[in-house]
Amino acid sequence: MSIKELEQKSINTIRFLAVDGVQKANSGHPGMPMGCAPIAYKLYAQIMKHNPANPKWFNRDRFILSAGHGSMLLYSSLHLSGYDITMDDLKNFRQWESITPGHPEYGLTPGVETTTGPLGQGISNAIGMAAAQEYFAAKFNKDDISLVDNFIYVIASDGDLMEGVSHETSSFAGHNKLGRLIVFYDNNNITIDGDLSLSMSEDVGKRYEAYGWQVLRIDDVNDTEQIDKAVAEAKSDLEKPTIIITNTVIGYGSPNKQGKASSHGSPLGDEEVALTKKTLGWPEDKTFFVPEEVAEHFANVKSNGQKVEEEWNKLLEEYKQKYSDDAELFNKYLNNGFDDWQDALPNFENYGEGLATRAASGKILNAIAEKIPNLVGGSADLTPSNNTKFEDVENYSADIRGRYFRYGIREHAMASMMNGICMYGGLKPYGGTFLVFSDYLRPAIRLASLSHVSPIYIFTHDSIGLGEDGPTHQPIEHYAALRSIPGLVVIRPADANETVYAWKAALSYNHGPVALLLTRQKLTIVDRTKYSSADGTEKGAYIIKDSDGTPDLILMASGSEVELILNAAEELENEGTKTRVVSFPSWELFEAQSADYKNSVLPKEIKAKLVVEAGVAQGWEKYVGDNGGVISIEKFGASAPYKTIFENYGLTVKNILSKAKSIL
Amino acid sequence: MSIKELEQKSINTIRFLAVDGVQKANSGHPGMPMGCAPIAYKLYAQIMKHNPANPKWFNRDRFILSAGHGSMLLYSSLHLSGYDITMDDLKNFRQWESITPGHPEYGLTPGVETTTGPLGQGISNAIGMAAAQEYFAAKFNKDDISLVDNFIYVIASDGDLMEGVSHETSSFAGHNKLGRLIVFYDNNNITIDGDLSLSMSEDVGKRYEAYGWQVLRIDDVNDTEQIDKAVAEAKSDLEKPTIIITNTVIGYGSPNKQGKASSHGSPLGDEEVALTKKTLGWPEDKTFFVPEEVAEHFANVKSNGQKVEEEWNKLLEEYKQKYSDDAELFNKYLNNGFDDWQDALPNFENYGEGLATRAASGKILNAIAEKIPNLVGGSADLTPSNNTKFEDVENYSADIRGRYFRYGIREHAMASMMNGICMYGGLKPYGGTFLVFSDYLRPAIRLASLSHVSPIYIFTHDSIGLGEDGPTHQPIEHYAALRSIPGLVVIRPADANETVYAWKAALSYNHGPVALLLTRQKLTIVDRTKYSSADGTEKGAYIIKDSDGTPDLILMASGSEVELILNAAEELENEGTKTRVVSFPSWELFEAQSADYKNSVLPKEIKAKLVVEAGVAQGWEKYVGDNGGVISIEKFGASAPYKTIFENYGLTVKNILSKAKSIL
Repeated sequence: MSIKELEQKSINTIRFLAVDGVQKANSGHPGMPMGCAPIAYKLYAQIMKHNPANPKWFNRDRFILSAGHGSMLLYSSLHLSGYDITMDDLKNFRQWESITPGHPEYGLTPGVETTTGPLGQGISNAIGMAAAQEYFAAKFNKDDISLVDNFIYVIASDGDLMEGVSHETSSFAGHNKLGRLIVFYDNNNITIDGDLSLSMSEDVGKRYEAYGWQVLRIDDVNDTEQIDKAVAEAKSDLEKPTIIITNTVIGYGSPNKQGKASSHGSPLGDEEVALTKKTLGWPEDKTFFVPEEVAEHFANVKSNGQKVEEEWNKLLEEYKQKYSDDAELFNKYLNNGFDDWQDALPNFENYGEGLATRAASGKILNAIAEKIPNLVGGSADLTPSNNTKFEDVENYSADIRGRYFRYGIREHAMASMMNGICMYGGLKPYGGTFLVFSDYLRPAIRLASLSHVSPIYIFTHDSIGLGEDGPTHQPIEHYAALRSIPGLVVIRPADANETVYAWKAALSYNHGPVALLLTRQKLTIVDRTKYSSADGTEKGAYIIKDSDGTPDLILMASGSEVELILNAAEELENEGTKTRVVSFPSWELFEAQSADYKNSVLPKEIKAKLVVEAGVAQGWEKYVGDNGGVISIEKFGASAPYKTIFENYGLTVKNILSKAKSIL
Repeated sequence: MSIKELEQKSINTIRFLAVDGVQKANSGHPGMPMGCAPIAYKLYAQIMKHNPANPKWFNRDRFILSAGHGSMLLYSSLHLSGYDITMDDLKNFRQWESITPGHPEYGLTPGVETTTGPLGQGISNAIGMAAAQEYFAAKFNKDDISLVDNFIYVIASDGDLMEGVSHETSSFAGHNKLGRLIVFYDNNNITIDGDLSLSMSEDVGKRYEAYGWQVLRIDDVNDTEQIDKAVAEAKSDLEKPTIIITNTVIGYGSPNKQGKASSHGSPLGDEEVALTKKTLGWPEDKTFFVPEEVAEHFANVKSNGQKVEEEWNKLLEEYKQKYSDDAELFNKYLNNGFDDWQDALPNFENYGEGLATRAASGKILNAIAEKIPNLVGGSADLTPSNNTKFEDVENYSADIRGRYFRYGIREHAMASMMNGICMYGGLKPYGGTFLVFSDYLRPAIRLASLSHVSPIYIFTHDSIGLGEDGPTHQPIEHYAALRSIPGLVVIRPADANETVYAWKAALSYNHGPVALLLTRQKLTIVDRTKYSSADGTEKGAYIIKDSDGTPDLILMASGSEVELILNAAEELENEGTKTRVVSFPSWELFEAQSADYKNSVLPKEIKAKLVVEAGVAQGWEKYVGDNGGVISIEKFGASAPYKTIFENYGLTVKNILSKAKSIL
């Protein structure tokens, strides 16, 4: 059998594993895998450096299926290549507890590099990975040893390129010359609504040239030599990311559905599957069929992959000999080996007129930055407002791959790239914007949480306390909206010292994303000689001031409102009301505590509980109960000096006293 | 005084009103107005057709300040042009209850066409307006009378063009040949972080050519003849939207801050204000100064504006004579004059195996579409899934400006454009996507709510009930996240007939946006001979089935879970538990009811209340109280046939019975 014939047979094997998987599940997207099988085959069997026996090998090439609905393309390729995905797994596509879910999920399936499905995210994650790749290459490669020299490959769909987030990240990638990124654009001219011409007619190639990318073309994806040629050309210019506009046919081989939207999102149907097999010369009576010679061919892929990693391991040994300090550092990067930062955390004493928690956050970063060199920061063009930059840090740029990312006015890009940076491995990213703009990056926050990766979001200007910028910039619903995302940890510290523990919790948490909600305005630093230590922050909620004996009333708040309830408590105590004050920076951290601890802070038998929050009440009812109350904001904010807004919105000691009396 | 001198004086008047306003407020963004004052001057004083005495004149040219932080540019221009913004209003910039807030707010200030500040939104709203403009022109203009021939002008910043949403809408605008859109790109090369080169180096002109736009350039914005020339050229090609790349200098005139980020977001300071006035030959001792000749010049703008509208009114009279039917229709469009659609609403009886609420929604649209011709639909490329298209409707395209928008895989664009369509006036837009992707369009939902405009979102595939597509596509936190937005009405109907009343409520509501949450899976049509009428939907929550005598237990749910609690109630009644069932499609509609009604549905004295929801519990605590319970989902979904997921996630009659017993 000629290599050409073997290639075609292998490609058809991928096609029909996908077709059969979708047919058996009676659900899924056959058209995309049928069109793109040649790309997947070439990448997995010939082009990529990867070791199916060790999907976590650091210097592997990455493949991201941004068009995640074509998941069977990925699962089939991984199975054939020898990753730990069995034929039974393929047969269990889209079934309960299978490792082959409807869309690829990071962490669930060996060889799946990110979670995709929501369009625009995969290519953007990949751009984050490509940024991380260049960081490692610049930091560790030597003239004689290129320790990190992998490539990032993507298949992206029309939808990926229509989504705004891909524009943001593609502009970033061109600007920062991420030359090891190679994107195949699956140019099949079909979307769910029908012909692409219904909704899009832009010149994609010209647009990517405008971003500073190299633009290549493949006229016919089934002519596999064109794939080789394009990838070689892509690699010949490492100063530019490459997009390869690849003409494909959705549902390729299906006599009645190829080139049509009908092959996109539904099984072909038994009859059409049979016709398609006949058309492509495949045994009509077989399902999930892998010809022996194809299996053998892919067995070589697996053994070659092991050799490739072995060679790299030898290279690493040589590196260790020649550059032992860097090798040790490299090892620490890869294994989260920086652990003496906790001792460097500052303690804030009296700051006169107080300190905004965003300013405290900036000082904390400065104090620990050197101790965690793999912490990489950034902001979506609000650096001076978010206090996200620490001193003496270099920008990440095409020339110098520093630790500080200038994401531009591209919040969504920032978050999606941070996911990719996490998934690449070895780096811990944080990024800043205003809290109100967390709306722009929610799709990426959700995927971070679903994927159990741990970027840190620095959301400053966290309430009406930002003042004059007005309601377009004042978060109201955002505490509730963020708290609603499963797995996201939201922390809103009440002063500079709670901010220290918020950072400690954020840096220690490795199972999902963390959002720090910080003030623009100055907050009094709580006098910890008089009140409890801020270390309670790590428990999510703690008694910051207790009453003498069983309290009559419990006041609760987070962030800037804690100062208000502490002041209110003093007056209440003067008037004879025994008042406990609970600082409540994080619901999620509190819920993770023991039932005993929780009941000790908020005993069920104390009925008079009052929350004060500069946002919607939604969800606080759970903590205050039927006899409690919430002072909240249930409308949008206003443009004025912030003290005026607090006053007019009833966030005052006076109002707290009045409300407290009404529930006592 | 030469016209050139008068122009310069007028431009400097705008500049210094902005500078003084920011200085007095001690807060704001002086740099952008200083740079862009020549554009604003030319538009308001010379180029635009507008009538300051009637800011709502339909055929006026629209001006959108997408770079909303430069709000003083807009307020100053409106004030000078004779809109109802006084000098005192300018002096009250960013103060409590002023009509000159930090960022422009639609509905608050005469002449402000949309709410801007969050970048990318203004230009995208404008593209929605330009789409609406073409719709009206195509529908009503005649060979001899061009009734609607206005233009849409925009000033957009670097940030606007970096944001993904502007990419989405710009691609749409080019594809649909929105040739009456003219965007000035404020090319000042400065962002908050510093030089634009930190984050962006793309070729903006080339990118917009790729979208199919006309790309023009102004080398120096202070050479006002270039502005005239560019606008004339823009208007010479009405097949293409135009972007005019306009070189400006941020903080123009400030000796120490011009061209620097320091002029962007803070007052210049008294000293620098004085230096700037000196540099530009402005009286240093005067603030909020309007030279007499400038005031006179702008008085002509106002009187000319009145003449322009009067002429149009004459044209409209002529139109009424010649085309009386169309004139009547035009009048109905503009004044929401279609009111007989309610009679056309269908009633769903038994549908065998049931009907998905998305399918019911599609049938409802078909039933009423002809009755409300100004209802314009669309989907972000999920037309067959969202059931958003009704029969015989034509697509909106460059050739035929039909009623159905093919937004492409651009959810954010859809929502932002719908805001613009609402603000243009005369049309009622709705648009569909999957509920999980509501995250992509949140920034625009928020602005719809803040602006009190009323698009309708059709969010289908509203739970784990979508099945195999898995957790990336299954909303969990989205009910809570949407309910948290002030002013947004969320309705999740339980069957086809509740969907009818959900649509009725949505179409009747004109004070803010409405989101309809609809199932992918079929739902039994509730037998209304046995249970209460679905018209209770309009009250947000209603007793769909009551017990005989005071209930022991109240079960509550929305959407697909109502069927579950109805079935559970039957079993509970059989076992002797008096059970009330409350269908609860909308918190917001329920909260708008009288206290009496609310207490009649959910009496305080009945303590055993149980909610069943296929999403996070957050917020339901308010309705169930201390002794109640919630069966909810507090983690992400799973990929499997949907009945399997419901079963494994505890959304079963069995689990409801068990939980009910535990709280009784």
